[in-house]
Amino acid sequence: MATLTCSASDLASFLNTVNDTSSAASYLCSRFDTISKTLSDTSFAVNTTYLLFSAYLVFAMQLGFAMLCAGSVRAKNTMNIMLTNVLDAAAGALSYYLFGFAFAFGSPSNGFIGRHFFGLRDVPSPLTDYSFFLYQWAFAIAAAGITSGSIAERTQFVAYLIYSSFLTGFVYPIVSHWFWSSDGWASPTRPDNLLFGSGVIDFAGSGVVHMVGGIAGLWGALIEGPRIGRFDQSGRSVVLRGHSASLVVLGSFLLWFGWYGFNPGSFLTILKSYGESGGHYGQWSAIGRTAVTTTLAGCTAALTTLFSKRLLVGHWNVIDVCNGLLGGFAAITSGCSVVEPWAAIICGFVAAWVLIGCNKLAEKLKYDDPLEAAQLHGGCGTWGILFTGLFAREAYVGEVYPGRPGRPYGLFMGGGGRLLAAQIIQILVIGGWVTATMGPLFYGLEKINLLRISREDEMAGMDLTRHGGFAYAYHDEDDSSQKPAFAMRRVEPANVFFTPDNQSV
Amino acid sequence: MATLTCSASDLASFLNTVNDTSSAASYLCSRFDTISKTLSDTSFAVNTTYLLFSAYLVFAMQLGFAMLCAGSVRAKNTMNIMLTNVLDAAAGALSYYLFGFAFAFGSPSNGFIGRHFFGLRDVPSPLTDYSFFLYQWAFAIAAAGITSGSIAERTQFVAYLIYSSFLTGFVYPIVSHWFWSSDGWASPTRPDNLLFGSGVIDFAGSGVVHMVGGIAGLWGALIEGPRIGRFDQSGRSVVLRGHSASLVVLGSFLLWFGWYGFNPGSFLTILKSYGESGGHYGQWSAIGRTAVTTTLAGCTAALTTLFSKRLLVGHWNVIDVCNGLLGGFAAITSGCSVVEPWAAIICGFVAAWVLIGCNKLAEKLKYDDPLEAAQLHGGCGTWGILFTGLFAREAYVGEVYPGRPGRPYGLFMGGGGRLLAAQIIQILVIGGWVTATMGPLFYGLEKINLLRISREDEMAGMDLTRHGGFAYAYHDEDDSSQKPAFAMRRVEPANVFFTPDNQSV
Amino acid sequence: MATLTCSASDLASFLNTVNDTSSAASYLCSRFDTISKTLSDTSFAVNTTYLLFSAYLVFAMQLGFAMLCAGSVRAKNTMNIMLTNVLDAAAGALSYYLFGFAFAFGSPSNGFIGRHFFGLRDVPSPLTDYSFFLYQWAFAIAAAGITSGSIAERTQFVAYLIYSSFLTGFVYPIVSHWFWSSDGWASPTRPDNLLFGSGVIDFAGSGVVHMVGGIAGLWGALIEGPRIGRFDQSGRSVVLRGHSASLVVLGSFLLWFGWYGFNPGSFLTILKSYGESGGHYGQWSAIGRTAVTTTLAGCTAALTTLFSKRLLVGHWNVIDVCNGLLGGFAAITSGCSVVEPWAAIICGFVAAWVLIGCNKLAEKLKYDDPLEAAQLHGGCGTWGILFTGLFAREAYVGEVYPGRPGRPYGLFMGGGGRLLAAQIIQILVIGGWVTATMGPLFYGLEKINLLRISREDEMAGMDLTRHGGFAYAYHDEDDSSQKPAFAMRRVEPANVFFTPDNQSV
Repeated sequence: MATLTCSASDLASFLNTVNDTSSAASYLCSRFDTISKTLSDTSFAVNTTYLLFSAYLVFAMQLGFAMLCAGSVRAKNTMNIMLTNVLDAAAGALSYYLFGFAFAFGSPSNGFIGRHFFGLRDVPSPLTDYSFFLYQWAFAIAAAGITSGSIAERTQFVAYLIYSSFLTGFVYPIVSHWFWSSDGWASPTRPDNLLFGSGVIDFAGSGVVHMVGGIAGLWGALIEGPRIGRFDQSGRSVVLRGHSASLVVLGSFLLWFGWYGFNPGSFLTILKSYGESGGHYGQWSAIGRTAVTTTLAGCTAALTTLFSKRLLVGHWNVIDVCNGLLGGFAAITSGCSVVEPWAAIICGFVAAWVLIGCNKLAEKLKYDDPLEAAQLHGGCGTWGILFTGLFAREAYVGEVYPGRPGRPYGLFMGGGGRLLAAQIIQILVIGGWVTATMGPLFYGLEKINLLRISREDEMAGMDLTRHGGFAYAYHDEDDSSQKPAFAMRRVEPANVFFTPDNQSV
Repeated sequence: MATLTCSASDLASFLNTVNDTSSAASYLCSRFDTISKTLSDTSFAVNTTYLLFSAYLVFAMQLGFAMLCAGSVRAKNTMNIMLTNVLDAAAGALSYYLFGFAFAFGSPSNGFIGRHFFGLRDVPSPLTDYSFFLYQWAFAIAAAGITSGSIAERTQFVAYLIYSSFLTGFVYPIVSHWFWSSDGWASPTRPDNLLFGSGVIDFAGSGVVHMVGGIAGLWGALIEGPRIGRFDQSGRSVVLRGHSASLVVLGSFLLWFGWYGFNPGSFLTILKSYGESGGHYGQWSAIGRTAVTTTLAGCTAALTTLFSKRLLVGHWNVIDVCNGLLGGFAAITSGCSVVEPWAAIICGFVAAWVLIGCNKLAEKLKYDDPLEAAQLHGGCGTWGILFTGLFAREAYVGEVYPGRPGRPYGLFMGGGGRLLAAQIIQILVIGGWVTATMGPLFYGLEKINLLRISREDEMAGMDLTRHGGFAYAYHDEDDSSQKPAFAMRRVEPANVFFTPDNQSV
Repeated sequence: MATLTCSASDLASFLNTVNDTSSAASYLCSRFDTISKTLSDTSFAVNTTYLLFSAYLVFAMQLGFAMLCAGSVRAKNTMNIMLTNVLDAAAGALSYYLFGFAFAFGSPSNGFIGRHFFGLRDVPSPLTDYSFFLYQWAFAIAAAGITSGSIAERTQFVAYLIYSSFLTGFVYPIVSHWFWSSDGWASPTRPDNLLFGSGVIDFAGSGVVHMVGGIAGLWGALIEGPRIGRFDQSGRSVVLRGHSASLVVLGSFLLWFGWYGFNPGSFLTILKSYGESGGHYGQWSAIGRTAVTTTLAGCTAALTTLFSKRLLVGHWNVIDVCNGLLGGFAAITSGCSVVEPWAAIICGFVAAWVLIGCNKLAEKLKYDDPLEAAQLHGGCGTWGILFTGLFAREAYVGEVYPGRPGRPYGLFMGGGGRLLAAQIIQILVIGGWVTATMGPLFYGLEKINLLRISREDEMAGMDLTRHGGFAYAYHDEDDSSQKPAFAMRRVEPANVFFTPDNQSV
């Protein structure tokens, strides 16, 4: 840090020499210059600290997903699903480093796809820094994590590798460019030509992350169909219970913990006053409010789910409560920074019913999603986008997206319908884009027999047949190496990967 | 952030005009004004960053409690206890938002109960901000989490909902007002009329949080009596082992992790010099010291427990060590910021023996507490309050509670008995208040048959009878849906809730 | 925080009085002085916030180790291994407080062992603060945690207590003094007499932490030999699978999470400009880059392991992928701050093959290491040290280790061989020192029958025979208290501890 000193005697001699006041002025100005630079350094340090620790929290959500998914599937597929979660993060890091980040935030762009910063070239620059890359990478891998839940327990691992790279490296970055990059066509921070004079407000990604992941999962799960036994011969729904409620609760709490990086962290900086400098109100306060709205929405959704499930089904179910909680979080993610705490309670209340409704619908349509991921992230995420268009408050919108007085805000808050219209466009566009990209991909994989595992593998479980053994051995005799019936098959390295007629990959 | 620029030529021309020095002065002062405001903004940003991430750590303790509790009960009640932990957080968020926070910190007050900020009205203000609410909410839900451990494995879920709301929304906030709000009657930061000229020093809540939760649990567990089988016909104690040591260790470590938000975070701000500005010593250093005293107390208690249990019982027991560790933390929580590291070692050593003693006593009295919560949080918390009265160091007390030279400190440090007297008052008052509120509540619930579950439910486990099934299914045949004997009963929505003669809720 | 005010009228009157400009100068200088002090306070607050939360993350790695180790051993030894992890942290806190920290960082020293700050005496000082102690303690306990993995499932608990205290309190602190203390003989921050004009660059401890822990484990595991059944009569390797893949993945992710404190946190401060103040590039940016290199190295190693294991063994193995991931982290830890992101990818790729190679070698030599700890931390750590000598970039080395223009850097980057030579010296010296201290210790323990447990204990599992029972009870009939065959033996307190002929401790 630059040092700041002041010699009173030197300064006095300068001031004394009336004929040469320029020395005095230079002396003083150089001190102000030093202060200015030190304040700038301090600002970088404070904001980067804030952003990096937020990024670490968002990364912790990947652990949350892994535990939630693991607990929600049957024991025989635990290793499979956890491996997909580890790989989301690992493969996502490389693809996002090589090109995903460039597609998403490589400004200037044509509004549709970024084209700078490939392989972090020219980073750091005044426009972007490593910490921002890390933060966005942690978001990118979340989308693929959502999708893996929908297609759990019946998908070939190779299919997983393919769709995950495509989603993290291409489909998701482009969506995030549209809504989050300052020159995305639907961004609320564009310098001009705002969509409906407003742009879409999807602050932390109910649409960009949750709808993308959920709709991708929807198509995957639809195309490969339900798990064996999920609906009985007469078509009745049979619950295939996950193997560990403890892991589900662990995962849900970790996601809650990480969501404090996801939502409040999306401000990216914390050292910024609102209005005139020097007051008690500034971005630090808006960040706190965002943490509060996030908390209230999730908690309300959890409580609503608890009581409605008690009335509808007759017992107090912790798994349902966890899903309700996460549905509330997915919904508030879009508007968390621009709504009042009381509105967040409404958001969470409705989100719980949206999830219940989507689950009813899924059952009717014989749609099988082991994690309820399409319903939860897709359904509640969609509600959240609309909610922002209804409840965004004028003052908060002006503070979070500054520099454009009179911009539209929530319909119910008196801000007219233009923001809501933009939000509806977001829903349609994301739905269309993900369908147009992921739908054909999953369909093609299905056609060349790379999507769904064989019936035998599904019955035996993928851990034994593909991943080297059962995940647990609580007693010595549990050890899978002693179960000859399901012994692993040694696949010859020769006929590996991508061979269409080979389901054994 | 406001920008700071200085034009030497402008300034020189001002300085040159000897007749009009006011322009020069204004020019200079406006720059100092800008700097002052930017420094103020920076201070808000730094302190809010510190407080928010501390709040997230404290929140992580709820996950720790959930895992610790889950691992400490038998498998058949895992879903039940985890649901109570999720609900502590969720229901606590709504009740603390609506009125709990107002009762606790709604200054100005009459010293007994706060009365502003209901529903976060008028927040943010120069007095309080959202981040402070979030931090305090994370504390409030910890108290209820402690209590749930004491009454685990035999309490109706409806009773849980009732006592938890009452504790988080009323009993706990009032206690925190007394000792932590700047106009609480026993607060050490009151402007005048300090209790014994000192006020109570319960820095992070050995009393406010741990004793409150522990004593509430004591009454609940006393009133409903021990679990079936906990003491055999001849009255001998039978250990009912928890179902997963891994979850116990996971939970204990998470609590340790979160305690770094609980204790050092209770400073609320980090950017504050002690004495003259500009030195290397300030609140940042006291915060580091607090993290160190916390660590040393817990670790000493863990080691003491390890060796004494080895001598007393004959084996090295990780569960006991974890409880000892947590007992050390609960004890140091009161004085963590005002004692020397070496004193923290004494604190932890004694805490271990207090816990062992309380457990011996509990066994003798046939008191059954599945988590040892009353012994650990109540017993060690009580010791911690006294410890502060004995070992608080003058210099540290003056720095942490400034503006009142000559205030009392620890008896053994030469500070006289007035602080100790105040601490004893705290123990008596908390004991009395929690007994007077929670005792009748649990007694009333018992009288109308809403407290304890039926014998059949207790034998079968609450997960199967009330919560939709067993928490685990490691093998296909484990699936509870195939155990007709314990099939869930479908409770008709008509006769739900609060019906006195209905134990099936 | 000091307040900054400026009265324009006062200042004007001073400036007006041409004859007495010293008042004006004093007035102005006192304001600059206030600003300077406030900026200094701010810097302490920002840097301490950064360091403390980094320390908490590093501490979370201890939880990660506990879960990783627990999942990697058989269920019958779960309590044993978790207890060792809790004790690493607890015993390490006391020994590091009493003398370990003093040996490591008690400057000024003779270059070989520090000798100040015993029991944190004279802390805080301008040289060191509590937060630095906490951070270094979290590192110290990691080394012992690594070693416990190598000797898992067959080591007496007393042996564990002895070697762990010795390692954390003496062996490790001295190594860290050599390479990290500013007057260590091989430190890159020495004021003069740099080793090969360079000093060793082991930024976050591929050598200081990982090699130390790994080599200690190597000797322990070599001396006590493989677990019963690890190699069959014909000498073929038999995999003794761990009991829970979920715990392995949980632990690996937690280690990943914590590594963001380990590597980027090793900068210790974040508020520091590089070159001239006021630009966008400074230590905050280098910290972000370090988080990115860490991520990329681990992820590349994970992917490399995934595909190579698929080719070599024929299935997709999540346990192997986790180990590969951690190997990548262990390797990049040395050079994380001074290499480019693309180089980190090379680092991770090679690390995966180093781990595969070391594991092949271990199998050939009938070396049994339940956690692959010696291979992973020792082998990949060694590679990481060399990697730094090959790929360290000139500009980054100059920024991270400033004040000595023209210092050597990576061989492949054109920096000559002197850094690489220093790195090789580090490998030799750590290998020699740990062998010379830990080798005799383990050998001595073996000679007096305190190292390895009895054959009966190993077959039954240590949890039942030494730690009070089996770790899990998923069904009522699982409860170990009902398995009389393996009932705990009550050891008389009389014949405890350190009796050479007593294997029952």
